[in-house]
Amino acid sequence: MERPSYTLREIVARLGGEAVGEPPAPLTGVATLDSAGPADIAFLANPKYRAKLATTRAGAVIVGPGDRDHASGPRIVSENPYAYYAKTVALFHPEPAIVPGVHPTAQVHPSAQVDASAHVGAFCVMGPDARIAAGARIGEGCVIGAGVAVGERTRLHPRVTIYDGCTIGARVILHSGVVIGADGFGMARDAGRWIKIPQVGGVRIGDDVEVGANTTIDRGAGPDTVIGSGTMIDNLVQIGHNVQIGRCCVIVAQVGISGSTRLGDFVMVGGQVGMAGHLTIGDGTRIGAQAGVISDLKPGDTVLGSPAMPIKEFHYMTAYIRRLAARKKGE
Amino acid sequence: MERPSYTLREIVARLGGEAVGEPPAPLTGVATLDSAGPADIAFLANPKYRAKLATTRAGAVIVGPGDRDHASGPRIVSENPYAYYAKTVALFHPEPAIVPGVHPTAQVHPSAQVDASAHVGAFCVMGPDARIAAGARIGEGCVIGAGVAVGERTRLHPRVTIYDGCTIGARVILHSGVVIGADGFGMARDAGRWIKIPQVGGVRIGDDVEVGANTTIDRGAGPDTVIGSGTMIDNLVQIGHNVQIGRCCVIVAQVGISGSTRLGDFVMVGGQVGMAGHLTIGDGTRIGAQAGVISDLKPGDTVLGSPAMPIKEFHYMTAYIRRLAARKKGE
Amino acid sequence: MERPSYTLREIVARLGGEAVGEPPAPLTGVATLDSAGPADIAFLANPKYRAKLATTRAGAVIVGPGDRDHASGPRIVSENPYAYYAKTVALFHPEPAIVPGVHPTAQVHPSAQVDASAHVGAFCVMGPDARIAAGARIGEGCVIGAGVAVGERTRLHPRVTIYDGCTIGARVILHSGVVIGADGFGMARDAGRWIKIPQVGGVRIGDDVEVGANTTIDRGAGPDTVIGSGTMIDNLVQIGHNVQIGRCCVIVAQVGISGSTRLGDFVMVGGQVGMAGHLTIGDGTRIGAQAGVISDLKPGDTVLGSPAMPIKEFHYMTAYIRRLAARKKGE
Repeated sequence: MERPSYTLREIVARLGGEAVGEPPAPLTGVATLDSAGPADIAFLANPKYRAKLATTRAGAVIVGPGDRDHASGPRIVSENPYAYYAKTVALFHPEPAIVPGVHPTAQVHPSAQVDASAHVGAFCVMGPDARIAAGARIGEGCVIGAGVAVGERTRLHPRVTIYDGCTIGARVILHSGVVIGADGFGMARDAGRWIKIPQVGGVRIGDDVEVGANTTIDRGAGPDTVIGSGTMIDNLVQIGHNVQIGRCCVIVAQVGISGSTRLGDFVMVGGQVGMAGHLTIGDGTRIGAQAGVISDLKPGDTVLGSPAMPIKEFHYMTAYIRRLAARKKGE
Repeated sequence: MERPSYTLREIVARLGGEAVGEPPAPLTGVATLDSAGPADIAFLANPKYRAKLATTRAGAVIVGPGDRDHASGPRIVSENPYAYYAKTVALFHPEPAIVPGVHPTAQVHPSAQVDASAHVGAFCVMGPDARIAAGARIGEGCVIGAGVAVGERTRLHPRVTIYDGCTIGARVILHSGVVIGADGFGMARDAGRWIKIPQVGGVRIGDDVEVGANTTIDRGAGPDTVIGSGTMIDNLVQIGHNVQIGRCCVIVAQVGISGSTRLGDFVMVGGQVGMAGHLTIGDGTRIGAQAGVISDLKPGDTVLGSPAMPIKEFHYMTAYIRRLAARKKGE
Repeated sequence: MERPSYTLREIVARLGGEAVGEPPAPLTGVATLDSAGPADIAFLANPKYRAKLATTRAGAVIVGPGDRDHASGPRIVSENPYAYYAKTVALFHPEPAIVPGVHPTAQVHPSAQVDASAHVGAFCVMGPDARIAAGARIGEGCVIGAGVAVGERTRLHPRVTIYDGCTIGARVILHSGVVIGADGFGMARDAGRWIKIPQVGGVRIGDDVEVGANTTIDRGAGPDTVIGSGTMIDNLVQIGHNVQIGRCCVIVAQVGISGSTRLGDFVMVGGQVGMAGHLTIGDGTRIGAQAGVISDLKPGDTVLGSPAMPIKEFHYMTAYIRRLAARKKGE
């Protein structure tokens, strides 16, 4: 595929912002201030790197209003240079066009419905009453259970499993190896053994969600497990049964969220965090990497440590202990 | 599929217990005391929620002998209401009937044996001498290596891999993405590089085991890796080579157990726990979430923290440090 | 397959070392000093177990030069008994011969190239311009994206996904469920929602690398993610975008390495370690299990704890706090 090229004028026509100057030739890519060459556009999102504006070889730069006059070469001025950068990368790297149709090797149940504009790849399996909406792409080797609904323009990368009865919104991305709707982990002890509690809820994933490779989201025990629209989930994350996650949360790799815990909107969860079950985590909470959350958090709380505590207390306590132990050792 | 409905009399005829009264119409589902309606049966397993018996809209409730007279409506009295609840859910949500036969797309080696009552799904691969016992279900896209034995009524969800020579017991459930029998992590340093140590043991999984989505259980280096009957394993767990796990253990998501460690029976392991290699963990041990276990544990020990220590010591120590640091700060 | 058997003389002819004596019959396997029988060869790599030389039933033993005269039976003397053991296991357990050819069910794009000596299994998918080199084995159900290159004698176990444009070196082993080249986790906040930043780099894996089951290695945001030759990676590891890992590192299960962090050569990373992004970790660094690394490490550093600190400080501090709390409790 030919890589697209754009002038600054063409970029702002598509993405907004103000173009100042114009490089001698159209731009062909996006790079960092350090690595960019004359055919690249770079960006300055962190004022810490402002000095690089003077030394970059980039053909043009994206800057915020405050840096409008710190740059002298061709530039785009945007209120939010980092988001502008994200859109510019998408402009230079468009998704390959979808090839509509169902691959002849795919096994699609006669009662399943695939929109004519959707793509279903080789070796996919679709159960009874599954529905694939317009513009969706189902990668090779995916298994879509009975009654599953996949929304418009959603993309399943290869080898995703969706168990029976789960629903996936529009413009969702599920990476390879994701498992949606496996049984939640529920059992009762009975006469010296464990009896499995059948997990009869489903999973509902909103719109514009991304789920990273090999992440697992379990079906509910009775109610559904719910992932709110706009939430971004990284690789190898475990989300337990009945969990409810709000809108636009960010959940970094290898996090584990135990059953029935509820997260509000815009919660930020660092890598490898563990959360106990039945908790309520308020909107805008920030949880540092490797924290162990064992109690509710109020909106806006910022915590760290295991057990998790306010981040200032964690840093103070850690520093205090290290000093104390060091002094004792020195005696 | 038509959802089944049952009277209390019909339920106790199947599951035991004592029926007191009878709702006006048969019941069609199971729910919590809070969410149940007149067609649902609910349960009270935790006395903390006893007051809800007065306010629930449930058509009937399952209670223990001590709560026999705290409920006034139709009820079932059972010695173990939580286990009874588990069985009731299974009664209302029966597994779909198995469809015997091998899907025409499956690639089954001529020397492999599939019982006539078993099901092998689309795009499965079965190697030489693999055996699938009566009533087993092999989901779509599973890969079953040479010489693998899968026991009666065991269920593999889609996209499970079992490497050569591993054995899986009866009534086992392996969720999607599980990998059984990949090589253990063993290497020797030699002249400035690593030489792989071939892993020539297998994996033996007992009966009535459940393994969660994307969990990995490595084959032994020489001896087998062994999972005892009745053990329940959650998602994204890592079990290293030569590990031996006893009967009826419970291992929550994202736990990692290093090579050659042995767990007794009824060991409870919280989420994200890590265990060093070559340890002996006694029967009935309880290990709190995120703990790091680096030494043997005696039967019945309850530990927490990294490094793991007795739970009382952990709680005392944590509280003490927080107070100490807080006081120091206040000075 | 017939198991091979060897005399000591035949072993040293292949692997070097010195043979002393010869058991009455050829050897047929390798075992530990404890479990070996008369047809097995065992090894002593750790002097702690020297006394077992007197009691082992092994037909022969592998020992270091210092133990040459501590053993009295047939033996092989090698400078590095543990590496010699690794090679001996490989000698007794040769890889099954490759069956060249593409399985008739595999979907291989016409522009893809598969060497005549390579094997491509059932239900594999290969995209445009993918290349499989001589002697490579692609397990069943693998999905190989456009432009992917797989090196000589590399082995993909079943159900591996490699996204478009990634390159895999020679003699690499990728275990089942591995996902190479899924999108890195990058987003920009824009007007109350997250915009995905397209991840336009790739993944480059060197030679002689092993990657454990269900591990995920994300593609770069702009530059590539790089895994150096000879590095060994265990199961369920997460490697973020732009990470660069040097030669011969060892990364134990469930480790998470955040974006843009660089590891030198021979770095040893214990299980469940988490590493923040944009760090520089020097050659030969050792990071203990469950550590949380949040700052750069110098070559040869050995750290533990979360936040990670020098291992001696961690042990001292932990012991000090436990004593302090215990004393306080006793007051």
